[in-house]
Amino acid sequence: MKTFRIHHPDITILPQIEEKINNLTKPKGSLGRLEELASQIGLVQQTLSPVLRKPVNLIFAADHGIADEGVSKSPKEVTRQVVYNFLNGGAGVCFLARQHNIRLRIVDSGVDFDFPKDLPVIFRKIRKGTRNFLYEPAMTKEEMDLAIQYGAEEVQTCYEEGCNIISFGEMGIGNTAASSMWMHYLTGVSLNACVGAGSGLNEAGVKHKYNILKQAAERHGLLTDPLEIMRTFGGFEMVMAVGGMLQAAELGMIILVDGFIMTNCVLAASRLYPEMISYCIFGHCGDESGHKKLLDEMGARPLLDMGLRLGEGSGSICAYPLVESAVRMINEMHSFQQASVTKYFD
Amino acid sequence: MKTFRIHHPDITILPQIEEKINNLTKPKGSLGRLEELASQIGLVQQTLSPVLRKPVNLIFAADHGIADEGVSKSPKEVTRQVVYNFLNGGAGVCFLARQHNIRLRIVDSGVDFDFPKDLPVIFRKIRKGTRNFLYEPAMTKEEMDLAIQYGAEEVQTCYEEGCNIISFGEMGIGNTAASSMWMHYLTGVSLNACVGAGSGLNEAGVKHKYNILKQAAERHGLLTDPLEIMRTFGGFEMVMAVGGMLQAAELGMIILVDGFIMTNCVLAASRLYPEMISYCIFGHCGDESGHKKLLDEMGARPLLDMGLRLGEGSGSICAYPLVESAVRMINEMHSFQQASVTKYFD
Repeated sequence: MKTFRIHHPDITILPQIEEKINNLTKPKGSLGRLEELASQIGLVQQTLSPVLRKPVNLIFAADHGIADEGVSKSPKEVTRQVVYNFLNGGAGVCFLARQHNIRLRIVDSGVDFDFPKDLPVIFRKIRKGTRNFLYEPAMTKEEMDLAIQYGAEEVQTCYEEGCNIISFGEMGIGNTAASSMWMHYLTGVSLNACVGAGSGLNEAGVKHKYNILKQAAERHGLLTDPLEIMRTFGGFEMVMAVGGMLQAAELGMIILVDGFIMTNCVLAASRLYPEMISYCIFGHCGDESGHKKLLDEMGARPLLDMGLRLGEGSGSICAYPLVESAVRMINEMHSFQQASVTKYFD
Repeated sequence: MKTFRIHHPDITILPQIEEKINNLTKPKGSLGRLEELASQIGLVQQTLSPVLRKPVNLIFAADHGIADEGVSKSPKEVTRQVVYNFLNGGAGVCFLARQHNIRLRIVDSGVDFDFPKDLPVIFRKIRKGTRNFLYEPAMTKEEMDLAIQYGAEEVQTCYEEGCNIISFGEMGIGNTAASSMWMHYLTGVSLNACVGAGSGLNEAGVKHKYNILKQAAERHGLLTDPLEIMRTFGGFEMVMAVGGMLQAAELGMIILVDGFIMTNCVLAASRLYPEMISYCIFGHCGDESGHKKLLDEMGARPLLDMGLRLGEGSGSICAYPLVESAVRMINEMHSFQQASVTKYFD
């Protein structure tokens, strides 16, 4: 697997950042999470005047062999249909991207469909969907390494085009099932607490999904190596996101984290390179059961809790204006001295 | 007091709104609070294609006689200094208003200072600060009626200029003290649970504030009429906000609710006209102790919980892009039919 050079940002600048924030015309600490975000972004960018440049939402799409077991409410064809909907501007993430001036890049990581060559989909297809992990590992080691490399290369391209803040999204029928396996294996939380309704299973559907995943867990037995867990359960869009996140951290970019699936990717990425977590801003707590538990396990405090469970990067992009607010705060608010306001605290 | 004609929006349109939302290309309900917001705004505007026009953050500023009792960490002069900071674009609410293209209108409702005539402050001064409610009612009945009227007129002006969504903000050293009294009297929650640190009191400061307010409560005894409670404790900026909110509801505008102080104003307004609550979107749960309890008492679920406690409308404006997202969702997302995506649920 490709290796990454990821380090914690140098914290020697932190006291200066905090002094600047505490001198802005507001009661100390009264902008709460905005102040924390401004500190984090200043730290990542090593500056008292951070800037957000050319935000991208990078969506990886792929199919999952496990979808053949009826673990999703949605038929597999929805993966490619939604990719078309991304391109036509009609999907959930599209209006959010337009609203916040965020560029969408759609990557075919492994959709079980041949898109026409003239579509603006980035072709990074590893295979037409993962293998069915009920019977065999979702991918080979070579496929996984390629997925990590492709993910990293896509982020490198965004970076070279001037982007310094990147959100990751996904589309892939069956990917909450794969994510539940990642969560279960990486955290040790009981499988039952990791399985949810995905795109809308009823109680019986969730029970069936759980039974399938339980059988898969019995087949594969104990796995502790994050790479083995990723390889065994897939999918390609998720492994590509892990590679992308690690590259983003290496490049000192801010990573906006979306829902249940992308949070599992952060978890896996941080097991490989713990320092990558310094670059992550958690956008929201999704409505997929397991997501809150997963965030708690990671000690992550997401910005929003709006009951979203759409994926695509919709939750992370919803939170984008709050990140922008934090940057505007530290750059645009006047200091007590500048504004001739009595500083009424030490 | 001026009377208002406020009615619940006609709910006969609701099934059509819900049908439209359920036909958008997403798992049913998967955009959570955005779907609820879109329903509410469609209902208020009686349309399947709602529009947000010319948003305004209307800030009322005034001083409080009770500030003489040392109930705030900040000296009284900060009220006028922050008004200058609003005008100079350096205050907390300013960068948020610029970010979201929200117009700021600053009203001098009763600041203890003579602003030069050429400043772009709207002159609606009732008096140079309220009376000290430790000894006497904060205002006379005539002053209160005038404040309600002025607030309503300011909103009418915004409406006539094309605004259909309005946030209310405030500035006034001592106004968390007044708000604690409103909350205590209007909800029956123990005074202790209504009193917090305001702009940054320490434990001893909060204790002193509580003792002062307890003495004031003993002096004024039992009050149950919302108007009497408003009049007794003030301030002018709060009563003006109540008048403004009622006028906004009469005009069918969306009301964005800010923090502890403005939530108390909604509470008082809704005691006078319960139907006004249909027009309110609660922006955030503030960090002033008492705010969460107050929201719970009202059954309100704010959009954000970011630890803000600045006032000025900063919390409601932070939430504005989420409201805009909801409107974009219902207008811009493609339906299953339009997008040729398999609708995989009933």
